[in-house]
Amino acid sequence: MKSGSTFLLAARQCEIAELEELARTGELVGAIGRFVHALQRERGLSNVFLGSQGQRLGPERLRQLADSDEAQRAVRALLEHLDTDGGRPRNGARLFSRVAVALHALEGLPALRQRVAAQAVSARDATAGYSRLVAALLAVVFEAADSATDPEVSRALVAMFHFLQGKEFAGQERALGGSLFAAGSIDVAGQQQWRHLIEAQEACLRVFHDFAGAELQRADEAGRDPVVTAEVERLRRIGCASRPGPLDSDLSPLWYEWATRRIDAMRTVEDQLALHLRQLCEHRIAQALGELQDQRALLGSLAREAAQPDAAPLGPQLERSVLALVQEQSLRLQAMSDELDAVRASLHERKLVERAKGLLMAHRQMSEDEAYKALRQMAMQQKRRLADVAEAVLSLADVLPGGPR
Amino acid sequence: MKSGSTFLLAARQCEIAELEELARTGELVGAIGRFVHALQRERGLSNVFLGSQGQRLGPERLRQLADSDEAQRAVRALLEHLDTDGGRPRNGARLFSRVAVALHALEGLPALRQRVAAQAVSARDATAGYSRLVAALLAVVFEAADSATDPEVSRALVAMFHFLQGKEFAGQERALGGSLFAAGSIDVAGQQQWRHLIEAQEACLRVFHDFAGAELQRADEAGRDPVVTAEVERLRRIGCASRPGPLDSDLSPLWYEWATRRIDAMRTVEDQLALHLRQLCEHRIAQALGELQDQRALLGSLAREAAQPDAAPLGPQLERSVLALVQEQSLRLQAMSDELDAVRASLHERKLVERAKGLLMAHRQMSEDEAYKALRQMAMQQKRRLADVAEAVLSLADVLPGGPR
Repeated sequence: MKSGSTFLLAARQCEIAELEELARTGELVGAIGRFVHALQRERGLSNVFLGSQGQRLGPERLRQLADSDEAQRAVRALLEHLDTDGGRPRNGARLFSRVAVALHALEGLPALRQRVAAQAVSARDATAGYSRLVAALLAVVFEAADSATDPEVSRALVAMFHFLQGKEFAGQERALGGSLFAAGSIDVAGQQQWRHLIEAQEACLRVFHDFAGAELQRADEAGRDPVVTAEVERLRRIGCASRPGPLDSDLSPLWYEWATRRIDAMRTVEDQLALHLRQLCEHRIAQALGELQDQRALLGSLAREAAQPDAAPLGPQLERSVLALVQEQSLRLQAMSDELDAVRASLHERKLVERAKGLLMAHRQMSEDEAYKALRQMAMQQKRRLADVAEAVLSLADVLPGGPR
Repeated sequence: MKSGSTFLLAARQCEIAELEELARTGELVGAIGRFVHALQRERGLSNVFLGSQGQRLGPERLRQLADSDEAQRAVRALLEHLDTDGGRPRNGARLFSRVAVALHALEGLPALRQRVAAQAVSARDATAGYSRLVAALLAVVFEAADSATDPEVSRALVAMFHFLQGKEFAGQERALGGSLFAAGSIDVAGQQQWRHLIEAQEACLRVFHDFAGAELQRADEAGRDPVVTAEVERLRRIGCASRPGPLDSDLSPLWYEWATRRIDAMRTVEDQLALHLRQLCEHRIAQALGELQDQRALLGSLAREAAQPDAAPLGPQLERSVLALVQEQSLRLQAMSDELDAVRASLHERKLVERAKGLLMAHRQMSEDEAYKALRQMAMQQKRRLADVAEAVLSLADVLPGGPR
């Protein structure tokens, strides 16, 4: 018959299995990060290629396609190993569903590339196509972060997701700035969109800083070349902080180059995040395996002690030791669960804001920027947190006319 | 190579596997409910037996031991089938850890019974021993509710947990009232404890009503015999709403009987809850299996269509149909996840209040009643929710001197 000790050990084994699964998910997240980076470069090069009527960066774009394909193959190889046939990772349904959406989006990539090559698509539409693809891939990372069962690993995944998402806003800013400079003028809507992308980046990087350890924060800070930062800020000022009107289109390649240097520096931080995540999983697994062995050894020696001819049946010593073990484990797991709830709250708030934005876009025919701005204004006027305002907006969903919930 | 469609189907299969696991957990919860009920009877009978110096209900107590053992065997049989060796249920670590604590607590049951039989323990201490056992078993139910992945099932489990917990407070009230009437007097502390148990019951039943469907609420209301309610309320008034002082000890068996009739009526609602839970799981599994088949058939026919010699490669029709499928599934799973967060919030609030009570008990040497009363007073004075006050108390944990966090 299974005893308390059986379940004590079984609980530990579950923990180890969950950590091993997290390690696999972590590998996938790292590979997705590299693929997203490749797609961001491809998007940027396609943008310049289209903006220059095929005159600039054509060969670089072709080389990048090969790099992107290699990064895509790495993601797909890991997906082959995700146990879809018999195993079922924690939160498998949602994770797999996000993967299905991302793989489906990827099926459209060859057609998008053909249209870029034939210059049969505008720079804006090509950018939007690539951005949708990146969003589908980042949704997989979000889900992985949301399903982690270990608070430390969850923290690392939340930091990673927000860093990737922040970098994606930086990539969108590069594309937007590049096309506006190239067009030679900017209007109020363009400036608003640009400022939104800057703010969204900064919000993501703040969450990254809240969840990344000191070491990774230092890596991020060390990666920021002040010369690059200064140039990016100067061009931002020219582009979106001045009066709307003509822009010097010669600044387009300059903007593209500085923005790229900034994004490439973020790429090295991303690699460190992926490395940290892998090491963390390995460390936690080794730790849990060690504790499992210790528990096994202790329970074994206690059982032998109790089996001695002179031992009292269920001696109070044995009783107390096992009790201490089960209580310690139960309290530790509860504390971990509480910590996990706290880490996940940041993801929950993000979900609320995204859903409220979606609602405003659907019901008030607002653009994404306008919806975000409306939420932020409500928050400032009512002196409430953005997430609280988003929740209030969502609670009105039922009374708003028509449209999806 | 695995495609989006592979993951679309894999996500559905994960959902089904999670539901099947929930069905097994549901069976376990039902069996735990029956075992808890048996232990509650055993506790009540032991109480009267001890209070009457072994004169009353001795044979009934012995018969009840056999009933309890049978209920315990049913729980243990289900535990044997919980896959502890290779499989790992979602949230396995915490669930198994709670099971380990409960099984360990159960090892003390034979010794407790011996001490009751030998009248070598006070009624109060015997009650406390049984109550700790019940608490360890209910913690397993709590964890099961917290780990459910389907909002409807989670709702049913949350309702069930709160009903069982409310009934346990009713059982503790029966024991307390019985011993106070038997003792022939009540003081302020006894009255306070009694009122706390009444309030705690009502709070649990309110949550039950929030989460149970209309049908189960009606079952609960139908089970309440107004005569029983009136008698229980009359004896409560005599016991704890009058001035502290002497009590008529002849009322002890009367109180015991009416309180028992009330609890037995709750038992039939519990059975209906367990039945509802089983049916719900079966219904959800059948539904998900049907949807899986439909998806398979649709994907198969789309693939055949695309394989026609005259079909365009990746025809837009196929494209749109698969896109609709993956998007629909992804949105549905997200909506379920949001709903789940909302259902779980009630459990989270309970955890906060329990932890804040524990903190006050450890740091301020308060009893459980005093700690609860202190929290409630703060909430009333500050016009805030109990959970918010609990959160504020917990945030002070780091600055409080000594003691565990």
